[in-house]
Amino acid sequence: MAAKYVYFFGNGKAEGDAKMKNLLGGKGANLAEMTSIGLPVPPGFTISTEVCTYYYANNETYPATLDGEVLSHLAEVEKIMGRTFGDPVNPLLVSVRSGARASMPGMMDTILNLGLNDVTVKGIIAQSGDERFAYDAYRRFVQMYSDVVMGMDKHVLEHLLEQKKEARGAHLDTDLTASDWKELVAEFKAAIKEELGTEFPEDPKAQLWGAIGAVFGSWMNQRAITYRKLNNIPAEWGTAVNVQSMVFGNMGNDCATGVAFTRDPSTGENYFYGEYLVNAQGEDVVAGIRTPQPINLFQKKDGDLPAMEEVLPECYTQLAAIRDTLEKHYKDMQDIEFTIEKGKLFMLQTRNGKRTAKAAIKVAVDMVKEGLIDEKTAVLRVAPSQLDQLLHPSLDPKAKKEIIAKGLPASPGAASGTVVFTADEAEAAAKTGNRVILVRIETSPEDIHGMHAAQGILTARGGMTSHAAVVARGMGKCCVAGCGDIKVDYKNETFTARNGKLVKKGDMITLDGSSGEVMLGEVPTVSPEMTGDFGTLMGWVDSFRRLGVRTNADTPHDSKVARQFGAEGIGLCRTEHMFFDADRIAAVREMILSEDLEGRQKALNKILPMQKGDFIGIFREMKGLPVTIRLLDPPLHEFLPQEEKDIEALAKSMNVPAQQLRNKIEFLHEFNPMLGHRGCRLGLTFPEIYDMQVQAIMEAACELVKNEGFTIIPEIMIPLIATVSELKELRANAVRVCDEVIARYCVKVEYLIGTMIELPRAALTADEIATEADFFSFGTNDLTQTTFGLSRDDAGKFLPFYVEANLLPEDPFVSLDQNGVGKLVKMACELGRGTKTKIKLGICGEHGGDPESVIFCHNTGLDYVSCSPFRVPIARLAAAHAALGGATDTTK
Amino acid sequence: MAAKYVYFFGNGKAEGDAKMKNLLGGKGANLAEMTSIGLPVPPGFTISTEVCTYYYANNETYPATLDGEVLSHLAEVEKIMGRTFGDPVNPLLVSVRSGARASMPGMMDTILNLGLNDVTVKGIIAQSGDERFAYDAYRRFVQMYSDVVMGMDKHVLEHLLEQKKEARGAHLDTDLTASDWKELVAEFKAAIKEELGTEFPEDPKAQLWGAIGAVFGSWMNQRAITYRKLNNIPAEWGTAVNVQSMVFGNMGNDCATGVAFTRDPSTGENYFYGEYLVNAQGEDVVAGIRTPQPINLFQKKDGDLPAMEEVLPECYTQLAAIRDTLEKHYKDMQDIEFTIEKGKLFMLQTRNGKRTAKAAIKVAVDMVKEGLIDEKTAVLRVAPSQLDQLLHPSLDPKAKKEIIAKGLPASPGAASGTVVFTADEAEAAAKTGNRVILVRIETSPEDIHGMHAAQGILTARGGMTSHAAVVARGMGKCCVAGCGDIKVDYKNETFTARNGKLVKKGDMITLDGSSGEVMLGEVPTVSPEMTGDFGTLMGWVDSFRRLGVRTNADTPHDSKVARQFGAEGIGLCRTEHMFFDADRIAAVREMILSEDLEGRQKALNKILPMQKGDFIGIFREMKGLPVTIRLLDPPLHEFLPQEEKDIEALAKSMNVPAQQLRNKIEFLHEFNPMLGHRGCRLGLTFPEIYDMQVQAIMEAACELVKNEGFTIIPEIMIPLIATVSELKELRANAVRVCDEVIARYCVKVEYLIGTMIELPRAALTADEIATEADFFSFGTNDLTQTTFGLSRDDAGKFLPFYVEANLLPEDPFVSLDQNGVGKLVKMACELGRGTKTKIKLGICGEHGGDPESVIFCHNTGLDYVSCSPFRVPIARLAAAHAALGGATDTTK
Repeated sequence: MAAKYVYFFGNGKAEGDAKMKNLLGGKGANLAEMTSIGLPVPPGFTISTEVCTYYYANNETYPATLDGEVLSHLAEVEKIMGRTFGDPVNPLLVSVRSGARASMPGMMDTILNLGLNDVTVKGIIAQSGDERFAYDAYRRFVQMYSDVVMGMDKHVLEHLLEQKKEARGAHLDTDLTASDWKELVAEFKAAIKEELGTEFPEDPKAQLWGAIGAVFGSWMNQRAITYRKLNNIPAEWGTAVNVQSMVFGNMGNDCATGVAFTRDPSTGENYFYGEYLVNAQGEDVVAGIRTPQPINLFQKKDGDLPAMEEVLPECYTQLAAIRDTLEKHYKDMQDIEFTIEKGKLFMLQTRNGKRTAKAAIKVAVDMVKEGLIDEKTAVLRVAPSQLDQLLHPSLDPKAKKEIIAKGLPASPGAASGTVVFTADEAEAAAKTGNRVILVRIETSPEDIHGMHAAQGILTARGGMTSHAAVVARGMGKCCVAGCGDIKVDYKNETFTARNGKLVKKGDMITLDGSSGEVMLGEVPTVSPEMTGDFGTLMGWVDSFRRLGVRTNADTPHDSKVARQFGAEGIGLCRTEHMFFDADRIAAVREMILSEDLEGRQKALNKILPMQKGDFIGIFREMKGLPVTIRLLDPPLHEFLPQEEKDIEALAKSMNVPAQQLRNKIEFLHEFNPMLGHRGCRLGLTFPEIYDMQVQAIMEAACELVKNEGFTIIPEIMIPLIATVSELKELRANAVRVCDEVIARYCVKVEYLIGTMIELPRAALTADEIATEADFFSFGTNDLTQTTFGLSRDDAGKFLPFYVEANLLPEDPFVSLDQNGVGKLVKMACELGRGTKTKIKLGICGEHGGDPESVIFCHNTGLDYVSCSPFRVPIARLAAAHAALGGATDTTK
Repeated sequence: MAAKYVYFFGNGKAEGDAKMKNLLGGKGANLAEMTSIGLPVPPGFTISTEVCTYYYANNETYPATLDGEVLSHLAEVEKIMGRTFGDPVNPLLVSVRSGARASMPGMMDTILNLGLNDVTVKGIIAQSGDERFAYDAYRRFVQMYSDVVMGMDKHVLEHLLEQKKEARGAHLDTDLTASDWKELVAEFKAAIKEELGTEFPEDPKAQLWGAIGAVFGSWMNQRAITYRKLNNIPAEWGTAVNVQSMVFGNMGNDCATGVAFTRDPSTGENYFYGEYLVNAQGEDVVAGIRTPQPINLFQKKDGDLPAMEEVLPECYTQLAAIRDTLEKHYKDMQDIEFTIEKGKLFMLQTRNGKRTAKAAIKVAVDMVKEGLIDEKTAVLRVAPSQLDQLLHPSLDPKAKKEIIAKGLPASPGAASGTVVFTADEAEAAAKTGNRVILVRIETSPEDIHGMHAAQGILTARGGMTSHAAVVARGMGKCCVAGCGDIKVDYKNETFTARNGKLVKKGDMITLDGSSGEVMLGEVPTVSPEMTGDFGTLMGWVDSFRRLGVRTNADTPHDSKVARQFGAEGIGLCRTEHMFFDADRIAAVREMILSEDLEGRQKALNKILPMQKGDFIGIFREMKGLPVTIRLLDPPLHEFLPQEEKDIEALAKSMNVPAQQLRNKIEFLHEFNPMLGHRGCRLGLTFPEIYDMQVQAIMEAACELVKNEGFTIIPEIMIPLIATVSELKELRANAVRVCDEVIARYCVKVEYLIGTMIELPRAALTADEIATEADFFSFGTNDLTQTTFGLSRDDAGKFLPFYVEANLLPEDPFVSLDQNGVGKLVKMACELGRGTKTKIKLGICGEHGGDPESVIFCHNTGLDYVSCSPFRVPIARLAAAHAALGGATDTTK
């Protein structure tokens, strides 16, 4: 038996069904499915994706049997429609559409009215009794076909149309008459001949094969190839071609066309939502020339044109019934297209409807209540990445925006305020109740109070892990960083943006920390809403996931926020951020400037009670949940000012000569601080610093255990380990201090000592390192930097180009590079578990909040991920998706 | 049969031999061997290393049978000597010495005269007829024993000795009388009792077991542990203990003691070289109190004291015969110790003699000529690391040095000159024939002409890959970099060194680029000498090695030097160094400052002919050998000045506003340039730069092939590849340019396009990258930096501490970290060859000149190593060692 390449649908019977998406593409499978369940679908057939595969495997030729199959199926369509393709009296017209498994920009979309020529147009005139309609359809066909199939520059024909309108004094297309259109068809064809040197095909079969070839050809055009690469769609999938008899919504006032969602795609509310136009073609609904009308009275507002429910009540009743049928059948919210030709309803498409995060949650939860789907399905219906919309204030999508610059989306959310250029001004403004945006070339520890006070932060320099970005994310505050588009002039208190746009102090701007956009003026924002449905869904999520979700939090406040978002512990508490507070930094600087151990110890003694207080606050907030505390990580020079003005101020306040300070700053200068004297290297060369921190941690724990009856198992984490020898020594030091404190308090407190795995060498020698570690926490930010040899702070100059040029599938700081960095993570897990079966494994890089990376972590067998508080729900949902067998985002 | 733990030697018979070093230690095995071949060795026995192992495996106890074995062997010694241990009339005295497989600092060395007490001393007086000798021997024993075995603070006894001398008005020890020594013995014992609370042991057997226990105990002292770690000696080896009957060289004028080498250890010349002292103990020869006398007339110079050949002619004749016996027996130059007691010669030790590089080569070549050894053995007799001495001028080891600072040994060699602080001064001084040392905080491209002109370069900042270090190594010029000991004051034209030592402009200093030492004044240097023996040896070397040896060279001059040193091609030609010349840098800066492609192209067109000229020069010099050229690697800001003064000068010369220059510098600023916009990232964002370079390479090759009939296969190397997508695009660009040039010249020129593997991600995905690469060259400098997360330029602040504290066995930038970085190299080789069996693999990091790393490269199956010209012979020799089964450096 010869292979079957063409699948028929029509008249209540279909050779395919919805499960055959791989073979028939999404559109074809759904047309077949709708036909089978008795919906009124114009008959047609689908040429399967196997033909596409054959076409490219065989030097762009078709299987020998294809021609016969197409003709015999065409004959079936002709039979049902009672019309014949190419017939002068009663001609059949068809549409030709592509249809891959997933809808794909760049592919040839649609050719309508195929089968028209100078002869068949007369038949259409006879059928429709409307010459103007017929010639309008004809010229539309010539335009579409010449553009898409023949490669004609479409502007030439558009120009001819404009000329015609001018000549006729016509303002709109609708002002042109039948003979105008008829003339235009001839002029179009002449222009095509002149431009391309070939005649426009008159033979309907030649037209059909031309259109089929164009669909297959478009599978390999550059845009489609790029899109597939970006979305990991294999070229082998191929596209199907759908050939379907035409129905017309523009044959008169008993005709209409419309699109609808079975529920509100914005809110998820369970009512029938849609728009339609009388006497129109499908493209008119979305083209925006005429105002679409609501389909039902429920939607209709004062001043709206009549609803379809009023104008075509029978068709509406039929459509509403189809809505119910489709939802029950597909068990998901549907996005449908329909056409009414002379009072008869036809379904042209159904597919799962795209929806907002809010709608996705409501639809999923409602459908469980309605018994349509189970909880697992509901969980899989919501894409983790969508949740981000819900967790921060966001710009009102309906608002107008004047974008004046774009930087890195360093910390999500949106905020408006007037521009200030110093932290002090920000603080002063906040005290008088004014909302401000702090604009800096870059921020430093001196700016913390201003960042606290501001609604958002905009910096001209620095990357996704710059001071501004890291601190802002910690605060859950909107930040656009590394915005090279702006040039800040502190002296004149202005910055210039794109096109030289000058923004002065006091001007209102709006930041979108989720897109990196900077806008002039105030753009209204929408607050996040944690509906009851959200809570319901997250309850199901937690019941399905295996992976723990912790948070990165450095303060009691962050810890509290994270717990509200469902964090099950702290995976990364960065102690250095505690040093930036104004009252602390003085002591820290005193320590750094001390030339001997005694001086350092004196300064550390001042810091000790403060650090202890921090930990007491955090331990209390986490109520016995695990807390991983990373010892000091950044190089010491990060705590010293860099600008001459600040150096002098500091010298004065510390009562030391400015030159001494300058010398120290000079001495501490590093060429590559990222690879410098930081992390455990500080702990080894200045053991007193880590000793103080460990003492603060254990005293905090012991006091709470002793006085407040807490259960606490502190997890002490040592950063930037490259060799087991480093960890061995630092672990011994930490154990000594811990045991001293425990003995002093006379309580029993267990503790864990582990390490970051954030350098390739640590991953490569994880078997050795595991001998000294109770846990590993993958610091994938730094691991990505070192594995790629890529400074996140500097990558802004070329990484966007890399992603754009498809040199990287995505920013490896956003989504874990599974092929490279992930290989090290896997290796380290295997080596670590080889040494110590039960070693605890987690990730605390920002990838811990990226859905794809969370799935990778689940599959790699990690115990938990840790992410910023606002991404905890995203990580929980992604973890559930992973446990349920991977993301199956049906809304894509 | 009970295990045997003790091995006897004496009277021409021995239970051990030289091959039993593992069991008996080096010393014990050689004592046994010497005894067996009939040399006069005082009888004794060796307690084997197995006892040491047993001792530590069994809670510091001895095997049950050991006591009996020791006693029975002691009895044998007593029998041969005709003396009895502890006998009041004719007592036997013994020495106790440790003896591991390799000599090891930190281990207990020697206890002499053991067996003396208040009773046996009388017997010694009777035997020797010399009371003073007897009590002197006794007090020496008490001093040694109490220090080494009992843990007495030796200063207490030394203080008593000083007091005694003062009381007696004695200047030298020799001024004290028998009764003084006798009193001192009593005073010593009293002080020991008071200090330690225990009596000094009188029982000779207790003394013996105490000494044996001290040897085993010292195996686990901290210094020994550290030494073993540093030298990769397993603790399981253990040490042996040698107990040997005492002979005395200080019993009168028919007694003597001496040390000798069977050939001259400085020059390798084949004559008997040694020194001796009449009436002295072994330690006196090296203590420097008395001037040692030459052993023979050959050595004797005017003014020397009489030679042993004159004073003790029979003993000398016997010793000279022993020399021949030993060399024929051991087939290597020996370092021997001997003692003459009352006219009778005893051999106390023989071992392979340490020697200079020059001597090592001469001895090895001579011994081949003499038929003692074969060529393979000769090659293995010279340690590759030793050769460095021969290849640069070095400080005269006999000269006095006043060291005022120490920095990084950035570029080997030694140089003296007067201090200057600017490149211009250096150049001016050189023109008038003055030798200068250029002292800078750090150097930049502006300083190149001054570096050329100076004898050596000293910088206060920057590491082993700082500009100064890299450029100096390229020039083969001595450089001490990152010398934190000095503080440079440009304004006053001075620098201060250790202890505040002020050095002014014009002061003479000397640099040792091999040790990093900075010395005041002029220290004489010795020039390298490439003797005929060197050539002979290197000929054998090349016949044995498999690994190719190329060089890192950027100029025709370097290429020529490297060829003279035996380089078989260029493994790394860094094109950016060509940009630093005064006439080039202007065009380079013009390119960088251009805001558009057109401007950059214009500047690149100026650079093109210069680059082409460079390559023509290098290709000619290399005469058809392979040349690997790396395309531009450093970030662009490296080509711009950083200091305000230089910026203004440049602005003037370029006729652009200084502010524009400052803005550009500001824009190009990077937080971590090492991980920044460099390497292939430049090639991708500014493809015109690489296009120009590729064009220059291929035009140079085509011209030589066409006009001069050369054979050239240029190897174009793309740096800093992280993903195959980068290489794919850049390869395609390079192929396009190459093919254009080849077509234009109408010649046939093959070329290879490959990549550096210098980022962990490249190693991890080498299977993918190999699809686009004809060769891999491991850039282990950067690979070490990224794998460790360690900036070489910044590591100076803690890396020395790391090595000192044994956190790292050695500087991973000097010797490849085989465990971590090496794992990536191996992985990349396997993955790369998995994709492309015949992919060419090399290494061009500085590790290519480190012997251990070269052996690793051989074992990993690389095709070649590439190193700086002056290290080429070292790499060749190391490669031969590797091929001959690893380094067996017998001189260690």
